Amino acid sequence: MVNETQHTCSASSSSKSDGGSSSGSESSKDSSRCSTPVLDADRHERLREKMRRRQDAGDKWFSLEFFPPRTANAAVNLISRFDRMGAGGPLFIDVTWHPAGDPGSDKETSSMIIANTAVNYCGLETILHMTCCNQTKDDITGHLQKAKRLGLKNIMALRGDPIGEEWEEEVDGFNYAVDLVKHIRNEFDDYFDICVAGYPKGHPEAQSYEADLRHLKEKVFAGADFIITQLFFRSETFLKFMKDCQAIGITCPIIPGIFPIQGYHSLRQLVKLSKLEVPQEIKDVIEPIKDNDAAIRNYGVELAVSMCRELLDSGMVHGLHFYTLNREVATTDVLKRLGIWKEDPRRPLPWAVSAHPKRRVEDVRPIFWASRPKSYIYRTQEWDDFPNGRWGNSSSPAFGELKDYYLFYLKSKSPREELLKMWGEELTGEESVFEVFTCYITGEPNKNGHKVTCMPWNDDPLATETNLLKEQLEKVNRRGILTINSQPNINGKPSTDPIVGWGPSGGYVFQKAYLEFFTSSEIVMALLKVLKKYELRVNYHIVNVKGQNITNAPDLQPNAVTWGIFPGREIIQPTVVDPVSFLSWKDEAFALWIEQWAKLYEEESPSRMIIQYIHDNYYLVNLVDNDFPLENCLWQVVDDTFELLN
Amino acid sequence: MVNETQHTCSASSSSKSDGGSSSGSESSKDSSRCSTPVLDADRHERLREKMRRRQDAGDKWFSLEFFPPRTANAAVNLISRFDRMGAGGPLFIDVTWHPAGDPGSDKETSSMIIANTAVNYCGLETILHMTCCNQTKDDITGHLQKAKRLGLKNIMALRGDPIGEEWEEEVDGFNYAVDLVKHIRNEFDDYFDICVAGYPKGHPEAQSYEADLRHLKEKVFAGADFIITQLFFRSETFLKFMKDCQAIGITCPIIPGIFPIQGYHSLRQLVKLSKLEVPQEIKDVIEPIKDNDAAIRNYGVELAVSMCRELLDSGMVHGLHFYTLNREVATTDVLKRLGIWKEDPRRPLPWAVSAHPKRRVEDVRPIFWASRPKSYIYRTQEWDDFPNGRWGNSSSPAFGELKDYYLFYLKSKSPREELLKMWGEELTGEESVFEVFTCYITGEPNKNGHKVTCMPWNDDPLATETNLLKEQLEKVNRRGILTINSQPNINGKPSTDPIVGWGPSGGYVFQKAYLEFFTSSEIVMALLKVLKKYELRVNYHIVNVKGQNITNAPDLQPNAVTWGIFPGREIIQPTVVDPVSFLSWKDEAFALWIEQWAKLYEEESPSRMIIQYIHDNYYLVNLVDNDFPLENCLWQVVDDTFELLN
Repeated sequence: MVNETQHTCSASSSSKSDGGSSSGSESSKDSSRCSTPVLDADRHERLREKMRRRQDAGDKWFSLEFFPPRTANAAVNLISRFDRMGAGGPLFIDVTWHPAGDPGSDKETSSMIIANTAVNYCGLETILHMTCCNQTKDDITGHLQKAKRLGLKNIMALRGDPIGEEWEEEVDGFNYAVDLVKHIRNEFDDYFDICVAGYPKGHPEAQSYEADLRHLKEKVFAGADFIITQLFFRSETFLKFMKDCQAIGITCPIIPGIFPIQGYHSLRQLVKLSKLEVPQEIKDVIEPIKDNDAAIRNYGVELAVSMCRELLDSGMVHGLHFYTLNREVATTDVLKRLGIWKEDPRRPLPWAVSAHPKRRVEDVRPIFWASRPKSYIYRTQEWDDFPNGRWGNSSSPAFGELKDYYLFYLKSKSPREELLKMWGEELTGEESVFEVFTCYITGEPNKNGHKVTCMPWNDDPLATETNLLKEQLEKVNRRGILTINSQPNINGKPSTDPIVGWGPSGGYVFQKAYLEFFTSSEIVMALLKVLKKYELRVNYHIVNVKGQNITNAPDLQPNAVTWGIFPGREIIQPTVVDPVSFLSWKDEAFALWIEQWAKLYEEESPSRMIIQYIHDNYYLVNLVDNDFPLENCLWQVVDDTFELLN
Repeated sequence: MVNETQHTCSASSSSKSDGGSSSGSESSKDSSRCSTPVLDADRHERLREKMRRRQDAGDKWFSLEFFPPRTANAAVNLISRFDRMGAGGPLFIDVTWHPAGDPGSDKETSSMIIANTAVNYCGLETILHMTCCNQTKDDITGHLQKAKRLGLKNIMALRGDPIGEEWEEEVDGFNYAVDLVKHIRNEFDDYFDICVAGYPKGHPEAQSYEADLRHLKEKVFAGADFIITQLFFRSETFLKFMKDCQAIGITCPIIPGIFPIQGYHSLRQLVKLSKLEVPQEIKDVIEPIKDNDAAIRNYGVELAVSMCRELLDSGMVHGLHFYTLNREVATTDVLKRLGIWKEDPRRPLPWAVSAHPKRRVEDVRPIFWASRPKSYIYRTQEWDDFPNGRWGNSSSPAFGELKDYYLFYLKSKSPREELLKMWGEELTGEESVFEVFTCYITGEPNKNGHKVTCMPWNDDPLATETNLLKEQLEKVNRRGILTINSQPNINGKPSTDPIVGWGPSGGYVFQKAYLEFFTSSEIVMALLKVLKKYELRVNYHIVNVKGQNITNAPDLQPNAVTWGIFPGREIIQPTVVDPVSFLSWKDEAFALWIEQWAKLYEEESPSRMIIQYIHDNYYLVNLVDNDFPLENCLWQVVDDTFELLN
């Protein structure tokens, strides 16, 4: 949002391309779905409504701006950052539009795809920037239609930087941001929430500060819902600007853009682009420490905190927008010190909720993808409606093909060398694989001194909840029960419980004990004998890579394994063991052995052959102990199995 | 099933009228609904499949035959008998076809409507008899289409009695039962299960026993699924008949028809109609005691029990069909002594499940109709699909109009005089009404010495479960909190619990405490003040007859108040407090004051004016304590309210 001018011009209006009718049909679809319990009113609101509600409640909020990265690896890292920074509770994030980077394309690094990932895979309310100069109306409409298709609901309408030094108006073209605002409203009615840029010091190309204010008013009156400002260095600058806006009749929210200084060079770069003057008192501090990054960042944090405090204390500011420069530490520090970073241990559901408007009533998923939620969303993205009122049902359409699973945002975040250190440069037998699983569970370093912090089926270290099972998990992994997913049984803990709680307060959460693992056919044969004894108390599904499938589930009904009871609501059962989707998960789970692990080694190498052997011969097993009020019997099942083998 | 002949003749076949395509679309609808958890495999099976499964499992069963009553009052009584005898677990009941009684009409006493009531309102698998002689093909097709529309799935195909003494074949008409069997299969494919009659002694009009067996074989080969026999007096008669059938290639189930002798006159009547010979050894016992009904019935029960034992012990008989003559005691006695009367305290769901194929996946209802399940089914009968996969949802189509509620099977079973004795010949004030409610709760006689065994909102005495709350209910009714529905909170009792259990074994059931009552506006004002203190722990809906509605429910979402967790299944939540349907229930609940109570008294009489006053001025209140694991706080709420009033 650097260097942009607004003027008025008459935006040509054309016939509606997408917005109206489609938006209408969506809302009628929603009304026929109101049976699905919705945990969080938030998920149904538009961004401008959320903003208004937070303001009315006197509840301060923040938002975060990112730019698209240059490489696929950087994109993978940025997405992890979305997940981590999303935990602090931003009202939204926004993704800038880089005309030079093919921003509307399907490239992993395009603005469109990064924003798509944020909304769909990270569950973040997201604003996509869009510039209009030097583009045809059709191009722009195409971008907007694509954004809508991907579930994006908010656009930051900008002019963009002109090509070359001199700015020339194009006749009938998009010359100013206001043209884009009008175009969006003409073509898509009220579908998008629209944000526009404000310049507390006036736009550098504007004739005057007053003229710039009038341009801003035109953008608002053309249909913008709120304003985010360019950065500034003094709170007075913003507060004066805000009063001036109000004086000429701009009543929509105006959100100050905060730029925590994070380094000497990034500041210089930004100042150059934005043509802003850095105040002398700041220069005086920075120049002497310009080679000390840490010192500059500390100063930047101090400066931002005190400016933000002044803004919030003024009573005129309800939200703060942060230019993160894709960095995490400085912004997070400022937010934590301001007390508006709100890491809530309570999850809305036991898995990450997508912010896609179509998926907002999703309230059940197969448990198999618990550690791979992005893969689940990716493989179900083509589901164009809610089979039987919800996602994740047996009779749902086919899962997306497995070849997609290597897509960049499903890749491991760790590079090959790191994975080899964790999972073994050289494997000597199945036991070396047992050892890797065991180290992942215990958190102890492997024999070469490296901690195993991720596995092909788990991108992150063990969940806090799984830690409750650590001792038993360690024991069974050592003996070749290679666990990839598990949960303890829970008999009615408060929904506010910091480890197992989720959903609104005042409720109670429940779980059936669950255990999922790979193991050899020898162990499976013994296990099956033991399971007979447990009859219907334990439901099992056992399958190998060829699809040989053994189960005692009487039919194709899903088995609820997580559910919650809340005041004034229907029962919510966010995870199920679903026999049909298990067969899709099986393909993915077995493929991960090869794609993520075997391929680290040379073809024909012994290490690769060991993994290939496991892939070809082991079974994937899931067990549910239905008797959730009693002590989890699954460990007894495993003990009995080993006893039978001895 | 008295006096019927079968011969073969070529049944003319016509184009399919209804069966095939409609049956197909129904099954495809079902498959798109497989998300709905189904508790009972039974509910998806056809009668012939159930029969086969019970036989394979070595599980003995029984069925019951009834005839349509002559008056509407007798129909109301018969329906209560269906409910009571249905509790013993018959595999099916069947309703005879009375050509003289306009059997296919919409009259309260027609065969069609009685069968409709049994399947839809009493949840019983039902066979409708149908005769074909002296009827046009169009008439018969019309009857069959209507039966299908009403949810009937089984037909007993009979010839019927000829008009006059001499039997004449009609050319191209329906002359024999086999014609009807062929017609059903031609017009409705495999939609109906078809039963035909067998004559262990040969049909009286048949040329010979052997000829009659051949006619039976023709009926089976034309598409009948099983055979029920005419009554007989000795087990050898049936066993010989069965062997003879098998010898000529009849392999379908053959069910012996059992006639427990219940009185001298009914026996004589039946013998005359069926042209059967009563064996001398039976005559010898009966003649001397012919004026002693009890003695004859005792003898009849003995005789039936010993004959049934012989049949079951033979290993050839798996089910017994009883000619009840619409009486209850003798048949129930026989069944109990045989040990095949299986009163299962476990309910499939907390309310009576309809056996209509369209409603078999129904798994949730508003709790308001808990004591008026037939009214709920009646008022939702026009719902031609499952809104959002189930019944009872907010966004469901409108409830059937209230004017229907006086339909015969929604009427009170007690006559006016009895109601006046229970509810007061003369009311002296609101307190006399409080007294009636209190007597209903306590089971104590009122001041005139009459027990109050029903109320306008409760056709039956207090449920066992409600008894758990008796003491508190008595206290509050005395003070003008006039309770019409309540349940205790339950925090995970086994599904096999004899009082609160339901659903398959191995599960756990839960409830939120619920209380629903009428009360004065004075009490409501105090109650509202008290409820503030309880915040979201207690959800309330308070409404008067004009529709003034006060609630703290945040939106129109239903609140689950009964749910169950079972092995290998999704969560089932059979009852909810649904804000939208509450307003339909409100109309019904208020109307019952007038229709069932006020109208017992003369217009303008003081008694009638008292009820009218309550109807016009009281509020209907429902309260839910969301915190089911804690002690029920609703009594505290009421105590606090009275304290505030003092």
